[in-house]
Formats: sequence, structure tokens, C-alpha cells
Amino acid sequence: MYELGVVYRNIQRADREAADALAKLGSATVHEAMGRVGLMKPYMRPIYAGAQVSGTAVTVLLQPGDNWMLHVAAEQIQPGDIVVAACTTDNTDGFFGDLLATSFQARGARALVIEAGCRDVKTLTEMNFPVWTKAISSKGTVKATLGSVNIPLVCAGALVHPGDVIVADDDGVVVVPAKLARKTLDAANAREANEGEKRAKLASGVLGLDMYSMRGPLEKAGLKYID
Amino acid sequence: MYELGVVYRNIQRADREAADALAKLGSATVHEAMGRVGLMKPYMRPIYAGAQVSGTAVTVLLQPGDNWMLHVAAEQIQPGDIVVAACTTDNTDGFFGDLLATSFQARGARALVIEAGCRDVKTLTEMNFPVWTKAISSKGTVKATLGSVNIPLVCAGALVHPGDVIVADDDGVVVVPAKLARKTLDAANAREANEGEKRAKLASGVLGLDMYSMRGPLEKAGLKYID
Amino acid sequence: MYELGVVYRNIQRADREAADALAKLGSATVHEAMGRVGLMKPYMRPIYAGAQVSGTAVTVLLQPGDNWMLHVAAEQIQPGDIVVAACTTDNTDGFFGDLLATSFQARGARALVIEAGCRDVKTLTEMNFPVWTKAISSKGTVKATLGSVNIPLVCAGALVHPGDVIVADDDGVVVVPAKLARKTLDAANAREANEGEKRAKLASGVLGLDMYSMRGPLEKAGLKYID
Amino acid sequence: MYELGVVYRNIQRADREAADALAKLGSATVHEAMGRVGLMKPYMRPIYAGAQVSGTAVTVLLQPGDNWMLHVAAEQIQPGDIVVAACTTDNTDGFFGDLLATSFQARGARALVIEAGCRDVKTLTEMNFPVWTKAISSKGTVKATLGSVNIPLVCAGALVHPGDVIVADDDGVVVVPAKLARKTLDAANAREANEGEKRAKLASGVLGLDMYSMRGPLEKAGLKYID
Amino acid sequence: MYELGVVYRNIQRADREAADALAKLGSATVHEAMGRVGLMKPYMRPIYAGAQVSGTAVTVLLQPGDNWMLHVAAEQIQPGDIVVAACTTDNTDGFFGDLLATSFQARGARALVIEAGCRDVKTLTEMNFPVWTKAISSKGTVKATLGSVNIPLVCAGALVHPGDVIVADDDGVVVVPAKLARKTLDAANAREANEGEKRAKLASGVLGLDMYSMRGPLEKAGLKYID
Amino acid sequence: MYELGVVYRNIQRADREAADALAKLGSATVHEAMGRVGLMKPYMRPIYAGAQVSGTAVTVLLQPGDNWMLHVAAEQIQPGDIVVAACTTDNTDGFFGDLLATSFQARGARALVIEAGCRDVKTLTEMNFPVWTKAISSKGTVKATLGSVNIPLVCAGALVHPGDVIVADDDGVVVVPAKLARKTLDAANAREANEGEKRAKLASGVLGLDMYSMRGPLEKAGLKYID
Repeated sequence: MYELGVVYRNIQRADREAADALAKLGSATVHEAMGRVGLMKPYMRPIYAGAQVSGTAVTVLLQPGDNWMLHVAAEQIQPGDIVVAACTTDNTDGFFGDLLATSFQARGARALVIEAGCRDVKTLTEMNFPVWTKAISSKGTVKATLGSVNIPLVCAGALVHPGDVIVADDDGVVVVPAKLARKTLDAANAREANEGEKRAKLASGVLGLDMYSMRGPLEKAGLKYID
Repeated sequence: MYELGVVYRNIQRADREAADALAKLGSATVHEAMGRVGLMKPYMRPIYAGAQVSGTAVTVLLQPGDNWMLHVAAEQIQPGDIVVAACTTDNTDGFFGDLLATSFQARGARALVIEAGCRDVKTLTEMNFPVWTKAISSKGTVKATLGSVNIPLVCAGALVHPGDVIVADDDGVVVVPAKLARKTLDAANAREANEGEKRAKLASGVLGLDMYSMRGPLEKAGLKYID
Repeated sequence: MYELGVVYRNIQRADREAADALAKLGSATVHEAMGRVGLMKPYMRPIYAGAQVSGTAVTVLLQPGDNWMLHVAAEQIQPGDIVVAACTTDNTDGFFGDLLATSFQARGARALVIEAGCRDVKTLTEMNFPVWTKAISSKGTVKATLGSVNIPLVCAGALVHPGDVIVADDDGVVVVPAKLARKTLDAANAREANEGEKRAKLASGVLGLDMYSMRGPLEKAGLKYID
Repeated sequence: MYELGVVYRNIQRADREAADALAKLGSATVHEAMGRVGLMKPYMRPIYAGAQVSGTAVTVLLQPGDNWMLHVAAEQIQPGDIVVAACTTDNTDGFFGDLLATSFQARGARALVIEAGCRDVKTLTEMNFPVWTKAISSKGTVKATLGSVNIPLVCAGALVHPGDVIVADDDGVVVVPAKLARKTLDAANAREANEGEKRAKLASGVLGLDMYSMRGPLEKAGLKYID
Repeated sequence: MYELGVVYRNIQRADREAADALAKLGSATVHEAMGRVGLMKPYMRPIYAGAQVSGTAVTVLLQPGDNWMLHVAAEQIQPGDIVVAACTTDNTDGFFGDLLATSFQARGARALVIEAGCRDVKTLTEMNFPVWTKAISSKGTVKATLGSVNIPLVCAGALVHPGDVIVADDDGVVVVPAKLARKTLDAANAREANEGEKRAKLASGVLGLDMYSMRGPLEKAGLKYID
Repeated sequence: MYELGVVYRNIQRADREAADALAKLGSATVHEAMGRVGLMKPYMRPIYAGAQVSGTAVTVLLQPGDNWMLHVAAEQIQPGDIVVAACTTDNTDGFFGDLLATSFQARGARALVIEAGCRDVKTLTEMNFPVWTKAISSKGTVKATLGSVNIPLVCAGALVHPGDVIVADDDGVVVVPAKLARKTLDAANAREANEGEKRAKLASGVLGLDMYSMRGPLEKAGLKYID
């Protein structure tokens, strides 16, 4: 259950080094490294292609059609943070635009992940401030009802605690619990390590069937080849 | 209720200067200037990023799977117009492609807004003819049933009268009633005027909380900070 | 009804020359040339803009959350093929990523069409390996349950037989039955032949109403002009 | 464009007799009688099966997550009215429940049509107060921001003026402009008049092909029968 | 690829006895008996609860907003048939209502399965004529463009040949190829045979874990119990 | 992040009396009593109308197309529990049918809430075993991959801990954290207490505008009445 009308000022951010290093591994590898869990639903899409970031979560709970708490959240941002916003109900309004982005960027935020809507996407693209969102909409919002900042919340089907690591790129958005950041980084690096070798083999024409020794299991499962 | 089988030839277009000047303000600012009304639903998306236009509406009511009335509409286009098309039922066929775009462009149309589907999007992009649409589909259409041209209609949830101003960009599509065009332009310009100053302040690290004097109202609404 | 657990090794591919030549005509023209049938549903979208391909279908039936059969399919790929994958149930997982793409590309595949999900889209874009898909998702898959390769299947509402020609571009994906490839190519070329002339006329301001002699039929259908 | 913060007290309701008589003809027949226009989108569904009503529209424009204006609208209801509510943005909250229904019913309202959400559906069913809605949700709303009452608005894709006739049943919701109510009633009655005879013929095994003399037109259109 | 403008008069219907007997087994059991294939997408829903039918397919390909071919199909119906209709593009119009249902019923049809829309659902319910459909809509249709009758087609993601067995109930719609009808009936009966015994055991408190001997495989897969 | 392959046997269930008493208050009142938070998304719908239950949550994390863990969960059910199941990815298969329901009911479960799919809905209705679900589908599932039982999980956008109270009825599904059950019950009872009086006033024609003293605030907000 969400606590409304509160701002937690002191949150425990994940290990900085791990939080920063996860970006280059990407959401797919990180998701695998966590055992295929922690992913936001695929309707969360970047407003422009190519951005790939990671950072520590500052969370925001919004009310429908009301972006007041994003202003409150700005003050809680520290360099290296990614703001993660959810709404108490499905809403596609443009809660976030270029002015808030200027403020967030000045505070050191790397991105916004918002299960709602965003606007001014052309300017945000020029500012190089990436947003993962459910909708793009010119529709503005009011400032009338309280939500909360830095409470645990559900964003696009994923549970996010303040301070968790967010990894976002063209494939989607993954949440890594703060205390698992270092371990996940190690596991992801390990996965990545032998990808180059695999890629070279596959590029040379070796089949996954042979490289992963799948022929036996497939036969055992009953696969039949028909000429 | 829609009148079927009619073409209104003489429509009252909005003030040309205002209709043209609204483009550079963009759909989000114009939408704010109108008091947050007049927006099409956010499923209307541009076929390519970056287009930003405004113009006067020529409206078209289509029948499902039938683009006959777009040919009829072409004749009614005057330079500076934007064609706005709706369908009597949900339909995602590709009603519009490069040949019709060539004709529309030759007549002086600046864009098409269609609550249905569009095709030949690669060529339309090369032609620099923007389309806001609900779907992209290769599916062609027949020419068998009458709709209407230049009647008031509902497109993506917004009421459009022929001659109204349409403002469309990456954030969406806004409709400005013809008689409010000038007033909306003034209001939008006024909003824009002090945005530069605000942006500079926010970029320097000033918080919206302080710039907009939100701390008092937030406290009054009961917001609690927890350390 | 689908046959499960089988791989057909010898499939009858469409005429190579026709299969290759259809790409440049594009999905919209090919769809028209076939009498407006054979199109996949418009939720199948390319992961990047601009790709335009044709090739012969290798079909794959997948189980939800399980990409085992894509590895099996890799072995059946011949140069000039396009892999067409469907799933026994709606599923948006990322069944396909850069390693499989490396393997498919090494085998000579030109593209993947998958009614499910895809990941590593940034790398796939850099590799110039186009994918038409219903979803983008970091979510990985297991390898535990059999599907089939090279059986007739339904993908995004279209029936695909192994060896059929697939034509895919920014407008969508069309399926041309193998035995109709040559005839469809001729019909599509014929359509294309006089498009240049039509385009020139329209660009000069001639109306479709006159070029297509629509005024009579419109009057007969009861269209009224009101001044 | 919507006017915000206003309540029009004196609206011109459609002819009472026609408004009342349209119910028994049903939305499908009325829709045909109007030439197949004026229908709300099919995502508007009744909360229980079997209700069939007509009445004069009192319109309400709501803000997301805020049902204040429904209370304002209650005062404007006269016996025989149907309240039609839209929201400035997509929102599925439960704006309406059993208390408001008690009030509406006491004022003489026959139904609610709301492009948003509704709750207490079990009680509403027991009260025999029908609601056509886009969503059912326990989510309550606040009372903080103004909308309007009795302005023309777009509800589920249809334009509704205060005083128009609303016809709603299991098939959907149709809007009949006030001034066309009598004429539409006559046209609908005429349609209905010979339906009984048609039904008897079809029930006896006569084919529509013969009853409607379709064989000639079908042959002319090129239909081929293959044995 | 669909053939347009044709009506196949002589189709090979599945074994009558098997086609009739499959109804009482229901779509879920039949679907299992076929190896979990042949199911239409779950957006196909019955217009009223409780109907459970099977029969042989008469197929109809429709054009958007045009129900002409349903009249043509009526003549091809034989007692025990179920009409299966698809549209060349997504369309939710009300193609089918009480008059056509009267005709279909008079010809001996048991149901309609239509990937499009239906209307007059209250009357259809009273007539006890079940329809599985994607949408309910008052929107009527024209009679202007040819489709086909009794060609193989894709309906809601499933391939249907004329004469195949259709099994439909509250859980969905399954297609059984004509030549597999008898074999599927036997397999479904076999499944059903020992369900009573299983149900009795489970009702007495025996766990599926024990009844299906799952504890070993679960342990082997690595499941851990934590107290 | 989800822990996979684990079953927690000892969970802390909410106060029994409170968990049982919340049912009769219903999801809307309980949701209000919690400050309008804790609601599942409105796409979770009951398979039949009229069920109204509450109970303590046993949670299950499923893999797509695989219902193995529902069998594991059955053993963990105690009388008064409601099983809450989520899937690692969007999936509409029929994970649950009459056999599992027989087992769940024998163990004392009151309902299932599943963000996936369900089948055998006619039999479940006859058994009086309610299910809230995202989809109905005949599609069966395999038993091959581990999920977990009694871990905290996100179901339809709401965070659920094992032992939390679930309140479900025709309006939706609300989650009450175990430790807040008693307090929420008190708050909900308090709300309910004066509803009867309010209802009587509204039924007698008193307006909410007067009963809630809204006229002043509306005037202050700027509402204008126009005659």
C-alpha cells in the first residue's frame, strides 16, 4: 500500500560504481544476469533511439493529471540518479516537459522512467535527456493533489525501491535491487565475457545447435526431422 | 450527426497569419494556451520525427476501407491547409500513399491528420509530407461509398470544424477553433515569452519549488518530509 | 492444426528471381498486385526505419517464453531466406537477439518476421539485420519445449507456407504464395510502370478526380456540392 | 474547444415524445435510420445486460480522477434525462457509484453514459440504474478541479450537444441531434414496420439473396460459383 | 492468399457424428486432445454465457464495413454448420443481426464465429443463436464489395478450412481439421474418461503434487522449500 | 527482484477476523478506507458477476505457458486463503481450470486472482469458485519451469505480500497489507456507517451540492452558472 503525502529525504543508494557500470551491459544482459526477473512491461518505450543509461532510483508517486510531485522530487535528485514515476491510476497526460527536464538535468539526473505520459519530446531529444514512457501527449497537468517521493512503488509491473539501480536502453527497463547491484554486475560481466567468442563462432557458420550441444536434448524431447 | 454525400466548397478559414504562426509554438504550448482542451488522443502519431506544422483544416469523412473522399477533398485544398480525415468506424487500412500525397502537396497542403491508416511512409518521409495517423498499413482501399468533405467531424476524440487551425508536432495534434486563433496565438506567445528566463533559472539549479513558490501550498496540503 | 515436434528439411522455395525482385516494389504495391490480400496485421512493425527486403520463408512455430526452435531453424536457412516465426500463444518476450542474428546472417538470412518479441535492437540495427515484430523486450527465454520448423502457420493473421515469398518494408509485411510469385511480380511491375506518369500529372496539379474520371461515378452515387 | 468552469442551466431538450419513443427501437435501428452515423465507439459497454433506454442528454466534462462536476450536474437533471460524461483525458477511475446513482435516480435520470470508469456495479444493477462505460474500477476520485456542465462535448468519438437524444442498449450508444429526433423516430418506425414480414420470410427459409434481389448485382460484380 | 469473388458450393464436411459429438467435450478438452493447437485468439468472446456448440465450418471472407457475403453464405449452409467469418482488415462493425440470424437458423446453422462485430445481441440471446465475436456494435454495413465463401481463411489467428469442425463455448473457439475429427474425438473422450476419478481424488484433498507424482521432478528441477 | 525456485511454507497471515470481515464492505469502500491506493488494474475482471470475497493471500509466480507452480501452491493453501498468481511475462493461457479449482476448494481456498488466463469458466461458475483474471482461454499449459510460491510479487500493478488481505468483487481487486487489516476494517466500517443516512437524503432529493457543502468551494474555484 502506498503512503501518500510523504517525502523520504535519506535513501540508501546502491553502490555507485556498480550502478554506473551496469549501463554498458544493457537491459537484456542485466535481466539475464538476474535470472530473468525485474523487467518493466514492454509498453515502456524510449522517446528516442540509442540512449543507454543506468543510475540510482528516486521514486515518485503521481496523481492522475497532476505533476506536482515531480517538482518535489527534483530537490531530492543527486548526480547519478534516475527518476522513476508511477501514477495511482492509468493516465497518459504529458506530466513532464523541457522545463522540468532542465531542472532534473541541472540536479544531475540521467533520465526519467514514467508510467504515464511525456511531452516536448523534440526538445528533450536535443537536450539528450532520455525518457522511457508509456505515452507521448501534449496534454498538460495541474498541481493540486499530493503523492509521495521515495516510497517503494510499482512502475510498469516492476517493484522499485528508492536507491535501486535502473538500467534502461532500447530494449526496455530493468530494476536491480540496491543490495544485488554488485553481484548482478559481476554476473552480467561474466555473461558478457564469453559472448565475443560465441559471436565469432556463430559468424563463422557454427550452429547454435552444435555450440550449445542441443542435438541430444532435442532428440530426447522427440524432435523428428522429415526429408 | 454527420451529413453524408456532401462537399462544402466555401469554408471560413481561420486568420491566415495566426494559423501560420502557431506552428512554431508547438502543440504543448498551444494546448496550455487554450486551457488544456482541444487535443486529439495520443494514439495519433507522426510517421516520422521532427515535423512541426500548423494550418487550416479541410475535413474529410471516410467510409471503412474506402478512400474515395480523399480524392474529392484534394480539389478543396488551398495553400496552407491541413487535411483532417476521420472514418465512420475504426479502420487501420492504408487510405493514403505517395500518389495522393503528391496531389495534396501540389495543391498546397502541409500535412494530413487521419484517424485511420497510411502507407508509403518511406516515400512520404522523403517527400517531407508529414502524416499523423493511428496506424501504418500496406492495405489499400476501394472507391465505392460516399462520405463527406468539409463537415464538422470528430477526429481522435477532438471536434474539428472546417477552417479550424490544426497544430501538430512530435507531441500530438491540437485543434484551435477558427475564431480563437488570434487570441490563442497571443496567449501562447505570452506563455513562451518568459519560458527562456525560467529555463535559465532552472538550468542554474534553482528549484521549481522555489521559482513557483510551491513550498507553502505543499505544506498546507499536508506534505511531510521524513529524514 | 499445427504439427508439433517436426522439422521439414526439404521445402519448395519460390522462384528465386521473383522472390528477390519483389523487394524493390514494396509491400503496398505487392499487396495491391495480389488483389489486396495476404497482409499481416499492422501491429507488425520494423525495429528500425528504412529496411526493405524480400525472400523465401523458413517458418518456425514457437512455444511461449521458449526460443529453442529458432536454433533448430538456423540450420534450415539458405541464402535468400527470411525466417517467419509465430508462437502458440500471445507472448512478447525477447525470443531473438544479436547472437541468433549473427548466426542467421551467417547462414544467409535476410530478415526475421516474428509475431512475439525481439531484443538487442540497437545491435541488430548496427548489424543491418531487420526484424519485424510485435514487441521489443529485454525478457529472455528458455529452451525446454518443442515447436516445429517449416510447417504452414499463421503469423499475425496471415497464412504462411514454407517457401512463400515475404515482402517487408516500413509499411508492413505481405505474404506471396510460392506459386504466385512470378505472376505477382509481373502484376506489380505493371502497376509500377505507369506510376511515374501519374505522379508527374498529380505533381503538376491535375486532380485524381479528373485523372481517374471519378466525377461521373461520384455524381451517380449522389455526391452534392454546396456553395 | 471546451469551455471550462461553466454550467449552462437552460438547455433545449429534444421533443419529449420522440426522445422517449426511440428507446424501444434500439440503437441499431436508430443508427440505420440516421444513415449510419452518430454512434459511440464500441468500447462503451453496459454494466449489465438487457437495459434499453432513451432520454435527453445532460452533458458533463470531467477532469481526470475528479468527479466534482457530476455533483454539479445532478442539479441540472430533469426527469427523462440521461447524463453523458466525458473526461479531458483517458481515465478509467470509478467516477460514479451507488450514492451518486441514488441522487441521479431521485432527480429522474434514466442512465449514465461515461467515457471513463464506474464502480458499485452490483448495487447499480440491483437499483436498475444502467451505466454505459469504458471501465469498471473501485478507484475513487477527488473533488478539486473544475470541468463544465451542458457544453457540447465529444464522448467516445461522438459529438453530443446538451438536449440531444441518447439511445442506449446492449448494442451500444447512439446520439440523435435534438432537432432530428422526430424525423429519426419516423424513419426508424418505418424501418421497423416491415421487419416483421421480412423476419417471417427468412424464418420460412426464403433467402436474403432472393428477398433483397441480390443475385443480379452479385453476378454483375463478378461473383463466381464453383462446384 | 485469399481468392476473391468466389463461392465454393461443394465442400467436404467432417464426419457428422464426430462433428456433433465434440460439443459436449468443450473447447479446452478438445484443444488438449489436439496437442494444444488450433485455438482462436482469446479476444473472441461469446455474446452470452453458457452456449456450447460444435459443427462444420462454412467460411466467409468479408470486406470492411460490408456484409454482402453473409447473405451469399446463407445459401451454402446445411443443418449442423457453423458459419466462420473473417474480414480482410480489422473492423468492428455490426455485420450480423437478428434478420440474418433468423435466416441462418432457418437453414440449420448452429452458430456464427466472426472476427469483426455483431449487433442485436439481446434478440440473438432470446433466439438462442450464439455468436462468438471480437466486438458488439450497432454500426450497420453496406453491400458493395465482393469477398468469398468456402475458401480456407484465417480467423482470429486460426486457419479454418471449409468443412472443419468448430468447437465453441465460454472458454473460446477451437478448430479441428475435418480429417482429424474422429481421431480428436477419441483422444478427447479418453482424456475425459478419467477426469471423474481425478476430480474425486482432488475433492477428497489429495494433492496434484502426489496424484501426478510431481515431487520428484520438482526436486530435480531445484525447487527449495523454506520454513 | 523475484526469487525463483522457492516455496515459503511459513507465512504470516493477516488477522483472520479482519481478513474475513472485509468482504462485505467491498473493494470500493476498502480502497477508499486505505486512502485510494492498493488497487489492481481494472483489466482484472471476475469470470462471473456477483462474487464478493476476502481472504489471505498465498502468492504464486508463474512462467509463461506453465502452470506447474499452481500445483505446488495448492499444498500451501489454508482455509480462508485466496491464491494470487502473476506471470513473469504477459501471457493469456488458461493456467487454471476445474481440476485445480476442485483441489483449491478442497484445501479451503476462496478464490483465485490471476494476471494471466483461466478456462473451464462454465464449470467454475457452477462450482461457485470465483476467479479474477485478465483473460479466458482454452489454451492449456505445460509443467516444465520453476517459479515460486509465497514470495512478494506484483500482480496487475499491485504489490502483494503473502498473508496480505485480498478483497475482490465486481468492481475489482484491492490488496490490504496484513498489518493494516484491522485498521482498514475500522476505517471502512466508519465510512459505511453513515452511508445509509446519506443514501436516504439523496434518495429524498437532497443534492450532494448541499449535503457536502460544495457550493462555496465551487464558487471559489470560479464556477459560473449561465442562464
